[in-house]
Amino acid sequence: MLRSVITGTGCYIPEIVKKNSDFSGNEFYTEDGIAMDRPATVIVEKFFKITGIEERRYAGAGLSGIDPESIDQIILAHNFGDVPIDTIQSDSVPALASRVKQQLGISNPACIPYDLIFGCPGWLQGLIQADAFCKAGMAKTCLVIGTETLSRVIDMHDRDSMIFSDGAGACVLQYREAAGEGLGILSANTRSDCGEETCFIHFDKSNHPDADGDARYIKMKGRKVYEYALTYVPAAMKECLDKSGYSIGDVRSIFIHQANEKMDEAIIKAFYKLYAVSDPPIDVMPMSIHWLGNSSVATIPTLLDLVRKKKVQGHELKKGDLLIFASVGAGMNINAVCYGYE
Amino acid sequence: MLRSVITGTGCYIPEIVKKNSDFSGNEFYTEDGIAMDRPATVIVEKFFKITGIEERRYAGAGLSGIDPESIDQIILAHNFGDVPIDTIQSDSVPALASRVKQQLGISNPACIPYDLIFGCPGWLQGLIQADAFCKAGMAKTCLVIGTETLSRVIDMHDRDSMIFSDGAGACVLQYREAAGEGLGILSANTRSDCGEETCFIHFDKSNHPDADGDARYIKMKGRKVYEYALTYVPAAMKECLDKSGYSIGDVRSIFIHQANEKMDEAIIKAFYKLYAVSDPPIDVMPMSIHWLGNSSVATIPTLLDLVRKKKVQGHELKKGDLLIFASVGAGMNINAVCYGYE
Repeated sequence: MLRSVITGTGCYIPEIVKKNSDFSGNEFYTEDGIAMDRPATVIVEKFFKITGIEERRYAGAGLSGIDPESIDQIILAHNFGDVPIDTIQSDSVPALASRVKQQLGISNPACIPYDLIFGCPGWLQGLIQADAFCKAGMAKTCLVIGTETLSRVIDMHDRDSMIFSDGAGACVLQYREAAGEGLGILSANTRSDCGEETCFIHFDKSNHPDADGDARYIKMKGRKVYEYALTYVPAAMKECLDKSGYSIGDVRSIFIHQANEKMDEAIIKAFYKLYAVSDPPIDVMPMSIHWLGNSSVATIPTLLDLVRKKKVQGHELKKGDLLIFASVGAGMNINAVCYGYE
Repeated sequence: MLRSVITGTGCYIPEIVKKNSDFSGNEFYTEDGIAMDRPATVIVEKFFKITGIEERRYAGAGLSGIDPESIDQIILAHNFGDVPIDTIQSDSVPALASRVKQQLGISNPACIPYDLIFGCPGWLQGLIQADAFCKAGMAKTCLVIGTETLSRVIDMHDRDSMIFSDGAGACVLQYREAAGEGLGILSANTRSDCGEETCFIHFDKSNHPDADGDARYIKMKGRKVYEYALTYVPAAMKECLDKSGYSIGDVRSIFIHQANEKMDEAIIKAFYKLYAVSDPPIDVMPMSIHWLGNSSVATIPTLLDLVRKKKVQGHELKKGDLLIFASVGAGMNINAVCYGYE
């Protein structure tokens, strides 16, 4: 059976390690512009307990053994464009995907590069779009990239700045005869809620009351995002799994957007509860948030690459393993993909 | 036969009319930062002769009679995000498509909004992607929008600033039984060249040597773009027409990206020449550039809406008319679609 199969992955782990202790000199303000009364060290400690983030990376991609000239589509997910260091203006002309095509030296004019903006779930949505192009006969090989430098759009006076990081991950998706039954992309599901949710993650002014009035930063209503994710992500994952025809007992690993450790754990628990399973398997969820933070579109492809290359202890993938990818982010958008590993 | 059919169009013509004479007080500089020695009035006059632009509009969307809740995908093409007036920072979080979904009051979570960055051909590429989603069984109704406010990213010291304008256009594409043979989207073709072409249209500093060093603006190597377009657009259109199975004599109208009148005329002439036709039909190319300028992704959907609503003299569409849409822009990217009108 013809299926879209991930034949290669790659990621770039930026070199600058930014530890939690690096934030202990910051002056944090609430979103109402009021200086937070607890010392930064206490805020940082509490932050770690909730998010599980000990350090993150601030700001490249590796590929499978394919001929770059055989790529039909380069789909690059980002949200803020290219923000040169020490500037606030983002640059997306030409599209970043066009620049990647240039950097890869691809001369094939039939290789189509475009940028996709879909919040944190952008990379996974790119995978879903690539699968659609394959099914529609428009592509056979797609390079799907997620890349973000959030360190350049964070407000240092906002506690949430500690969550965000930089990163890039990619995979090559090829449409071909799968190496066995139930391999490749099996099913996908996307949902989007654009009522009051539209402003849960958005671009807005600094928390510091004396900050430059024009400059804007990534802003997140953390509690709202948490409640939204807990309400809808587990059901969206279930819908995807049910579409695939497989059952909860078949699931080997869940690659979830590295947003916040406690939130991710709560989502997985709620997902299993929908199948009346009270305790998810202990090793079902590989994590990288402790040392990489939340790099938006880059978290899932980076984590997938790390696990494929046996760089996450206790996690190893075998042919036939049923994986679920799931993400949630600005929009608000949610998506999930069931994938038979080969 | 199941085909993707445009069932509605809409556009927003911004209210502020900016005439060529409004530029005659500008101080124009070359890209090397040298003040141009001819008076601005002479530069403006020469500009008009080449581009055909007499006025343009500086900074919305109307729809077909469909139920907004039935929309499966909202594809919004832009290049610079939302740039609030008097700022330089573009905003694309959440995606502009999410905000359109919010403004339309769509509560259906299965309606998926995303932004697409693909240079000026972004709207047409959105149409091609929508068609692919339909063919892949992922969508039946798509809203495809092109919107740009270039007036907020132009360098007033660059003569090219007179080319650009603001606008928004949209269409609804539905996948259904076409009303006859040869109706709906018949074929599509895209090409992308990312060698030296990558910097033909890009984001860079002002021509004025004393301008703020950080702020960047839309920049175009006009001569290079012209040569590129003349070399590749006619052949890309031919490839698309040949794929459709129709012949040059069947073509009723060509909706080409309103980039520059002389360039568009030269492209059409070269296209017909590929079929050994020396003179294209006199009324084959409806134009709006004279009064709307070049609004990037918005030109084709705006022009289509104007012609559908009989607002372009001498151009009227009848069921069965074979149309070609074609565009070229930053990337560099080129695309074309053959469409049987109904």
